[in-house]
Amino acid sequence: MIWVRACSALVGFRAPTCVRSLHSFPGITVAQYKTSEHFIFCSGTRDYNPKQMAIREKVFNTIIRCFKRHGAETIDTPVFELKETLTGKYGEDSKLIYDLKDQGGELLSLRYDLTVPFARYLAMNKITNIKRYHIAKVYRRDNPAMTRGRYREFYQCDFDIAGQYDAMIPDAECLKIVHEILNELDLGDFRIKVNDRRILDGMFAVCGVPDDKFRTICSTVDKLDKMSWEDVKKEMVNEKGLSEEAADQIGEYVSMQGGMDLAERLLQDHKMSQSKQACAGLSDIKLLFKYLQLFHVTDKVVFDLSLARGLDYYTGVIYEAVLTQASAVSAANEAQNCANAEESVSVGSVAGGGRYDGLVGMFDPKGRRVPCVGVSIGIERIFSIMEQKASPEKVRTTEVQIMVASAQKNLLEERLQLISELWNAGIKAEVMYKKNPKLLSQLQYCEEAGIPLVAILGEQELKDGVVKLRVVATREEVDISRADLISEIKRRTEA
Amino acid sequence: MIWVRACSALVGFRAPTCVRSLHSFPGITVAQYKTSEHFIFCSGTRDYNPKQMAIREKVFNTIIRCFKRHGAETIDTPVFELKETLTGKYGEDSKLIYDLKDQGGELLSLRYDLTVPFARYLAMNKITNIKRYHIAKVYRRDNPAMTRGRYREFYQCDFDIAGQYDAMIPDAECLKIVHEILNELDLGDFRIKVNDRRILDGMFAVCGVPDDKFRTICSTVDKLDKMSWEDVKKEMVNEKGLSEEAADQIGEYVSMQGGMDLAERLLQDHKMSQSKQACAGLSDIKLLFKYLQLFHVTDKVVFDLSLARGLDYYTGVIYEAVLTQASAVSAANEAQNCANAEESVSVGSVAGGGRYDGLVGMFDPKGRRVPCVGVSIGIERIFSIMEQKASPEKVRTTEVQIMVASAQKNLLEERLQLISELWNAGIKAEVMYKKNPKLLSQLQYCEEAGIPLVAILGEQELKDGVVKLRVVATREEVDISRADLISEIKRRTEA
Repeated sequence: MIWVRACSALVGFRAPTCVRSLHSFPGITVAQYKTSEHFIFCSGTRDYNPKQMAIREKVFNTIIRCFKRHGAETIDTPVFELKETLTGKYGEDSKLIYDLKDQGGELLSLRYDLTVPFARYLAMNKITNIKRYHIAKVYRRDNPAMTRGRYREFYQCDFDIAGQYDAMIPDAECLKIVHEILNELDLGDFRIKVNDRRILDGMFAVCGVPDDKFRTICSTVDKLDKMSWEDVKKEMVNEKGLSEEAADQIGEYVSMQGGMDLAERLLQDHKMSQSKQACAGLSDIKLLFKYLQLFHVTDKVVFDLSLARGLDYYTGVIYEAVLTQASAVSAANEAQNCANAEESVSVGSVAGGGRYDGLVGMFDPKGRRVPCVGVSIGIERIFSIMEQKASPEKVRTTEVQIMVASAQKNLLEERLQLISELWNAGIKAEVMYKKNPKLLSQLQYCEEAGIPLVAILGEQELKDGVVKLRVVATREEVDISRADLISEIKRRTEA
Repeated sequence: MIWVRACSALVGFRAPTCVRSLHSFPGITVAQYKTSEHFIFCSGTRDYNPKQMAIREKVFNTIIRCFKRHGAETIDTPVFELKETLTGKYGEDSKLIYDLKDQGGELLSLRYDLTVPFARYLAMNKITNIKRYHIAKVYRRDNPAMTRGRYREFYQCDFDIAGQYDAMIPDAECLKIVHEILNELDLGDFRIKVNDRRILDGMFAVCGVPDDKFRTICSTVDKLDKMSWEDVKKEMVNEKGLSEEAADQIGEYVSMQGGMDLAERLLQDHKMSQSKQACAGLSDIKLLFKYLQLFHVTDKVVFDLSLARGLDYYTGVIYEAVLTQASAVSAANEAQNCANAEESVSVGSVAGGGRYDGLVGMFDPKGRRVPCVGVSIGIERIFSIMEQKASPEKVRTTEVQIMVASAQKNLLEERLQLISELWNAGIKAEVMYKKNPKLLSQLQYCEEAGIPLVAILGEQELKDGVVKLRVVATREEVDISRADLISEIKRRTEA
């Protein structure tokens, strides 16, 4: 019953006007409601258990390694900002901002993404050049009745390059990073769609869209990955009052996909070439493809005129990475307990971003601009896929190398003394917190926790100055002198 | 002027009735107010810049390595909890809880510590055994007028062992962990004070404190690290209505410090021995010292009857680690821009915790108890000290191994091609985002960022199929063939 409500809520899926962050859907939360006997948990949030944390750590490590390979620093900002800092940045989604209660003092809100705090940080500290990553939680007050399955707290994982540089060099690096991360995470085949806000705006202009309708028509185009062209056109004409002719012209353009050649062709297009903006965007797309060729990533990149992305603040190139292998997409769907066909396309989206040259200036008293380009990895979606792929019994939640066990009673002190030696030598070790644990229960614990080795102490071993080293997997046992124990453990676990 | 207010606020320092978390004082925030031209920042919070993040990462890595060595898993919980989950857990400090605005749905509050969410997690998931660490931010709505220098957002760093085990074994491991971490972080000499709530309660009983005054008298004793005995006595007698005789008897006990011998002596004490509770606590202190001897850490541990710790939920052993080297304490003070003598003792406190056997049961519908013991590392204070110790110019904020540079114009494509090869080989590399950067500015960037190597491309090098490898520190240059470049970089940077 609860599942049904969770999934049906997704049909009323909010138009992703804030797709820069790709957050995930149902999953564990709802199950927790069922097992929990009374409600002591906030809806729309979830705990991460140790197995989920182990997967999360692995994904974070891969991503952070990539960001560091590209020379990024990291910063952190508070979880709340002044309410006015967030006001007017997210369009109609501003209603999803979590406000803190007015308990005296400033009016505060929980951060909605990491991009606005980054821009605030740059302006406040007068920083004009930085390459930084930031991995942290953001908050959206999704209506629980409408979108029960959406998390209200989720991670964002952003990489941005701020600074006045030559065109498309940092932009190309952002795409290279997406390519590296998706390859390393081994999520299956993917495609990176690119477009440019200036091309979209130029296209709207030459198709006869009135200036004041650019943003709202752009939002409608953004739905093309979830709606048919017929429905998109209907929305443009019936709801947004566009002429049928203009809509049809847009329809022709947004069906175009290609590479550098398409950009070349559109530069010659008799209509498109009338727009200076479009030409600037198209020239940059050409340049971008040139750099992407040098990075050997063009096989995955497609220039797609239907890519719009909702956020107002983009000013230039925009991009989005989607998984294209049916298996990965369906894993993501399954992970989200909702194989709704309407969702299956957008579910594949795992990274997105673009250029936003005007945002920092909004926080600077003199309006000084700091050009920025960045990418957000859809980390929650990637967690879902990785969780789905991992067989739960094989996920180790600790890195313990050895258990210090005893074969007889009254050896607690000897166990504590030995484990202390191991800890001091940097070995990851556990001991049971019982005076007289049974040998069998100590061995069973190792099997369950995936601990590969056991150091067994008995009276005979103590007399002989040795430890019986047992390999859990093979049950092989061998006596090792106390003096050699540490190096032997290191040798055996340094695989 | 701002500094003055920040420091004077600390004189009215809140009694640490929630000392389990040791959060830090003034610092960067206030300075940010001065440099910021308009107020776009919430008071009592701060950004971390890349240098601070680099130090923070180092400290976290040391601590997490220790927690993992002891076999801990990690979990994560949402930043907000149902308001009722936090209600009634923090005594009079509950007024510092941040509530979210009622925007429909449940009433929510930001977490105040990590212990209550941990207990809620265990009860909700019916977990009876776990060893977990959790590093995350918590929130306290300190009155900005009263405590301007206190951060409202700060990290906690908790390790806890939950489960029904034999006495004092997990408790001893918690102290071993504190010992390992403080040693590894190299913060100077330290002492770990231990006591037991049952000894305190027994002492209050035999000294004639009425049952209903135990908690409030305990809070007053807790101030002994910041107030003289005379002032503490005055508060007991004048404010809390204790008889002078009872206060004097308490005064005698709380001046006692020692080791296992003191526990032994108090077990024979004609008054103390009348309290069953006190005797249970004293026997456990003896056992604890026995295990600590096996861990070789008793040199740092002292049984101190004046240690009270404010939090209501402690039920057994309690402990607190303090730095004792004047240099470290004064570094902490300086870091906090407040060398106020009244603060200098408590500023040394860098870890604390204890046993809380009743908290999980408060969240279980049937009141099932899960005994717990844990420790919280005073991570914010440690950051302050480490920041103070690090010379800013030496803190590297990236790990970049090599810069790909060009000696002549028009070599952007060649640079991009080479850096792509390096990234694909896992080498951390940067390139300047300019078409034609000057060689000098590329070299200067390396010096500033601490990048050790430069791969210089010029027309001659391209013709010869080599790269000029330059060591930034020595300015030594050598030609390396393209085929050998990657292994040569790895060789030179694997130090």
